[in-house]
Amino acid sequence: MSCLGDDMIKVGIVGGTGYTGVELLRLLAGHDQARVVSVTSRQEAGMRVDQMFQSLRGHIDLSFSSPDQSGLEDCDVVFFATPNGVAMREAARLLDAGVRVIDLSADFRLSDVDEWSKWYGMTHASADLVAQAVYGLPEVNREAIKSARLVANPGCYPTATQLGFLPLIEAGLVDASSLIADCKSGVSGAGRKAEVGALLPEAGDSFKAYGVAGHRHLPEIRQGLLRAAAGGEIGLTFVPHLTPMIRGIHATLYARLTREVDLQALYQQRYADEPFVDVMPAGSLPETRSVRGANLCRLAVYRPQGGDVVVVLSVIDNLVKGAAGQAVQNMNLMFGLEESCGLRVVPLLP
Amino acid sequence: MSCLGDDMIKVGIVGGTGYTGVELLRLLAGHDQARVVSVTSRQEAGMRVDQMFQSLRGHIDLSFSSPDQSGLEDCDVVFFATPNGVAMREAARLLDAGVRVIDLSADFRLSDVDEWSKWYGMTHASADLVAQAVYGLPEVNREAIKSARLVANPGCYPTATQLGFLPLIEAGLVDASSLIADCKSGVSGAGRKAEVGALLPEAGDSFKAYGVAGHRHLPEIRQGLLRAAAGGEIGLTFVPHLTPMIRGIHATLYARLTREVDLQALYQQRYADEPFVDVMPAGSLPETRSVRGANLCRLAVYRPQGGDVVVVLSVIDNLVKGAAGQAVQNMNLMFGLEESCGLRVVPLLP
Amino acid sequence: MSCLGDDMIKVGIVGGTGYTGVELLRLLAGHDQARVVSVTSRQEAGMRVDQMFQSLRGHIDLSFSSPDQSGLEDCDVVFFATPNGVAMREAARLLDAGVRVIDLSADFRLSDVDEWSKWYGMTHASADLVAQAVYGLPEVNREAIKSARLVANPGCYPTATQLGFLPLIEAGLVDASSLIADCKSGVSGAGRKAEVGALLPEAGDSFKAYGVAGHRHLPEIRQGLLRAAAGGEIGLTFVPHLTPMIRGIHATLYARLTREVDLQALYQQRYADEPFVDVMPAGSLPETRSVRGANLCRLAVYRPQGGDVVVVLSVIDNLVKGAAGQAVQNMNLMFGLEESCGLRVVPLLP
Amino acid sequence: MSCLGDDMIKVGIVGGTGYTGVELLRLLAGHDQARVVSVTSRQEAGMRVDQMFQSLRGHIDLSFSSPDQSGLEDCDVVFFATPNGVAMREAARLLDAGVRVIDLSADFRLSDVDEWSKWYGMTHASADLVAQAVYGLPEVNREAIKSARLVANPGCYPTATQLGFLPLIEAGLVDASSLIADCKSGVSGAGRKAEVGALLPEAGDSFKAYGVAGHRHLPEIRQGLLRAAAGGEIGLTFVPHLTPMIRGIHATLYARLTREVDLQALYQQRYADEPFVDVMPAGSLPETRSVRGANLCRLAVYRPQGGDVVVVLSVIDNLVKGAAGQAVQNMNLMFGLEESCGLRVVPLLP
Repeated sequence: MSCLGDDMIKVGIVGGTGYTGVELLRLLAGHDQARVVSVTSRQEAGMRVDQMFQSLRGHIDLSFSSPDQSGLEDCDVVFFATPNGVAMREAARLLDAGVRVIDLSADFRLSDVDEWSKWYGMTHASADLVAQAVYGLPEVNREAIKSARLVANPGCYPTATQLGFLPLIEAGLVDASSLIADCKSGVSGAGRKAEVGALLPEAGDSFKAYGVAGHRHLPEIRQGLLRAAAGGEIGLTFVPHLTPMIRGIHATLYARLTREVDLQALYQQRYADEPFVDVMPAGSLPETRSVRGANLCRLAVYRPQGGDVVVVLSVIDNLVKGAAGQAVQNMNLMFGLEESCGLRVVPLLP
Repeated sequence: MSCLGDDMIKVGIVGGTGYTGVELLRLLAGHDQARVVSVTSRQEAGMRVDQMFQSLRGHIDLSFSSPDQSGLEDCDVVFFATPNGVAMREAARLLDAGVRVIDLSADFRLSDVDEWSKWYGMTHASADLVAQAVYGLPEVNREAIKSARLVANPGCYPTATQLGFLPLIEAGLVDASSLIADCKSGVSGAGRKAEVGALLPEAGDSFKAYGVAGHRHLPEIRQGLLRAAAGGEIGLTFVPHLTPMIRGIHATLYARLTREVDLQALYQQRYADEPFVDVMPAGSLPETRSVRGANLCRLAVYRPQGGDVVVVLSVIDNLVKGAAGQAVQNMNLMFGLEESCGLRVVPLLP
Repeated sequence: MSCLGDDMIKVGIVGGTGYTGVELLRLLAGHDQARVVSVTSRQEAGMRVDQMFQSLRGHIDLSFSSPDQSGLEDCDVVFFATPNGVAMREAARLLDAGVRVIDLSADFRLSDVDEWSKWYGMTHASADLVAQAVYGLPEVNREAIKSARLVANPGCYPTATQLGFLPLIEAGLVDASSLIADCKSGVSGAGRKAEVGALLPEAGDSFKAYGVAGHRHLPEIRQGLLRAAAGGEIGLTFVPHLTPMIRGIHATLYARLTREVDLQALYQQRYADEPFVDVMPAGSLPETRSVRGANLCRLAVYRPQGGDVVVVLSVIDNLVKGAAGQAVQNMNLMFGLEESCGLRVVPLLP
Repeated sequence: MSCLGDDMIKVGIVGGTGYTGVELLRLLAGHDQARVVSVTSRQEAGMRVDQMFQSLRGHIDLSFSSPDQSGLEDCDVVFFATPNGVAMREAARLLDAGVRVIDLSADFRLSDVDEWSKWYGMTHASADLVAQAVYGLPEVNREAIKSARLVANPGCYPTATQLGFLPLIEAGLVDASSLIADCKSGVSGAGRKAEVGALLPEAGDSFKAYGVAGHRHLPEIRQGLLRAAAGGEIGLTFVPHLTPMIRGIHATLYARLTREVDLQALYQQRYADEPFVDVMPAGSLPETRSVRGANLCRLAVYRPQGGDVVVVLSVIDNLVKGAAGQAVQNMNLMFGLEESCGLRVVPLLP
């Protein structure tokens, strides 16, 4: 199962101490056409990566380097696994040096810079690059990604939600003014940050909604659906929830049908050639654990009691198809590799 | 804080080995006007109750008795904490003996016996009693409960969902033809039954929907909302999910406003006198753990981005306000006790 | 079941935002002889307590006050639920004002101040008070506690471990030079602090030891066992572990018998009159959930294969018998109340 | 990273519906020198494997077959992932047909058939085969495994415990009459069986010991240590515990040193050439999640306070190095493949 590429791609990771960082390291450790040569962390510079992450012992033989001495400009591609606001300041320098950039943060996801500033609470430092960035959802933008220099890797909720709604929206089959996305995420979605709300005794054995009044992924999802709708409005109610598990997103999507359609056939055809979208047989109930560790979105589509409400169930691993895995998928596309290179991990169940 | 009643109420519990049974025992152990005198279990007859449930050591000094030798007919009230299909066969005998009955199973919840048979897959053994049964949601039926001989204790999802929707439906403020209830339950909702799907390695660290095509609580919720609507149709899409925690239900409810209204005021007024419904301040995010162990429904109501979609967040402990606690609340009403007697437990957090 | 006391005791809590603080509030909300009149928090002064802890809505009608304006000196008793190093600086002032003090931190637990300084990494600010402090383990010091002005509430591991070893040590039945305490704690034992190691994605679904080279509770346990041994040495290996649950400690204790004894009878006699120690029947396997929320230590004692190794299983809720519950028990003793006042909570299971 | 072998090995799995079965399927799906051609299940015959295990969709294109029509005798190797008592009746037929057999159950682990019968509560059906079986712990028996026809794959606790104790026992450095193994297992260790005790609401958020009076893995561990000790007695106290997580075993081992030794060097030398044993740097605290999904035992060794007690921390994934992974490692050895073929999975963290 070797991948068809010529040379090893030299990879740099900015911000390797978070969950998307360690997940990139896990996936790239098993990628036979790419090698991580630099992982930066301002705070942990000098510490061995496998001292922070025991799981990488024997797989990653690197220490965190200071961003200043990291040799990132000699890489073929650099992943930003940083908080929002970092990549928009640092990407230009790397792009100018001929390095391709895949940003896992939100900096380049919204094409409307003012909208971005409103939701993210800061002025955008690099509006010109926003225009060049390609939104890295391969199921929509595969060709553009192949030639992109800068890819904005989608958010986790937006990935699960767009993949679930797209067949309906593209085909104009539903009332796009009254979409509902009720989404549930594992706690790793909050990042590897010391925050009381994500402590096991706080987030464990409990369930709650958050961001009901407005969440940053709302404009990202809306933008994606608007492009798919090719005109018209998108009215979307998006309610994210925190569920007491480590990984996984379950999006439960509701829309009102305006025309008759064979939903199962629609979904199967839309994703027939997609290596990382699995339309399950009618009547299936996708579990988040069925994609644990894997770059995959599983979908099931329902029409309860034969009414006009469509219910789509969409599950991903937020750290893989919702972050690091999709980023590697984008890298494979950008470098002409087989799309699934490094991504053939079988999900871990139980 | 003693409760105002005259004599100790003699309580029997049929089916004391499940989660609603042990929860009744926990609550009644702290009830100073009622005493459990009989707990039956066909299978465990003879075993001490506190051998099965270590938590009851020092609190419940009883052994399970065989249903035949249980003296249930000498009780003032008998709770059925049995699988569906038992109470409908056994309640009549007790009622005839003058015992009041509170059924925590689904046997008497639907007034339409044919509908019941369709959803529960058996012929109803006691259609005449169905007509006498009072649906035990005190926030709707308080007066009827006070004089009831037979109370049908509501289901867990129906409790959380009805309490969340009722103010909107009663006031005729929303399009009742397109309601959505996206509900999430802890695994204890599946009961204390040996089933692979509820094993920790199956249900742990994972999230999934179930019963999307149709769930037994759908007709129960629809019936309750229809009564509240006083005419018109109810179109409800109900999707339950299993979340990896022990207790708790979080219902996220969606409806489309048809008139302007001050939602916060509406909810506060509707539940102003209710001891077990807590309308939280605007902007609150109720957590299921905030009601862990307590007979309480906490509600928060939103109108995201000021649009016409109402989002109601409703949390209960499925074993308390969703089962045993509500049953004790009903008992208190039936026997003229203070409604909160035995139910002043402070939720356990963390 | 009302408690026998005359007036309501006025209670102050210093440091009410941590887990022992909220647990004190939960227990005292149900205590009919004591009322919390002041809860301090330097950082959250002004915020309503029930805004931080939804579970206390309707039970605690207070806001956090600044320590300077808290009126603590007007209280009858003040609990310190603070990090180590606070009570030793602030207790004297309150004691001088005639307030009794129960310190839930470690400041007054070790009678050897140098030893304390070594393990806690700071100079002790109040060595004279250390001499006056009574170690608040009622099963050992009940009489001294009754007349104490300053009680050092025991640590969680030390409570579970001492209660498990005491019958053997007091009777001189085991080789005290080779004791082993293999202890497992839920994550709330780490406190309500923003630390990466206690995040759900870090501590969830995983198990590890910590503090193997030396943990602060080691000298506290050793001190307690030495006093019980009345001479001789104590050789103790103590290994704590972090287990992916919220509450609970399970201590598995190993010792080598030097004389024949009926272990079951020994334990039952030692704790026959103790309201909060439950010696379970021979062959029992105590679960931590069997004491969830309750001020109780359950013990079982084994002699595997009839050899000379004694295995004691000891479980407590680390936040109750291991902290706040024991503190309330001490308060009851200090004020001449019934020892179980406010502590008759039935454990929450499941 | 391809493995050096000639042809694809044809693999059969008896009992593919349990956790060791699905784990074998996961690992073998990524093994480029072996292909699963048959998976049997008497109960689920005819059902697609990936209908039962969503995680295998796209990786395993097989249906469960009835044991009678499974073509197992045409396989090169058959794994028994069955309850105890099956392989001892069915292995002979396959061995006679020239098939090699790896038994993941306990049937061939104890060389003393009477001892086996005592612990497993049945007469052994195949005492002659017991004598031929090789105990499949490669770190002890590598050469014998290479030429074995029948391998008895070790139990999960025995793997973690033996690997932890072996360096000490082989070198005769400790008092072998007073060993203690305090072991903690995730719930998947109980198998994929419908049992109340393993339900999430029973085993979740709680911790308990079990099998204190005697557990079947005790004689297996004792046998292994006796062989390593080359004479003398083994006195072992073994206490297993259930911890609320899915996968993972943490063994905490205690022994008394009888001679001075550089423990860190001892362990590093003993396992220097072992691909699947990781002796961590001094002061490390291995987490079970650091081996999640990987065929690895991580060890750390301590001498608390410089005393004569050695504490060894040993972690494995019970389903991988404790079952299916070790079985694949054994298969690789038996067929002359690179030992790590199919086993280079990076652990999943978080």
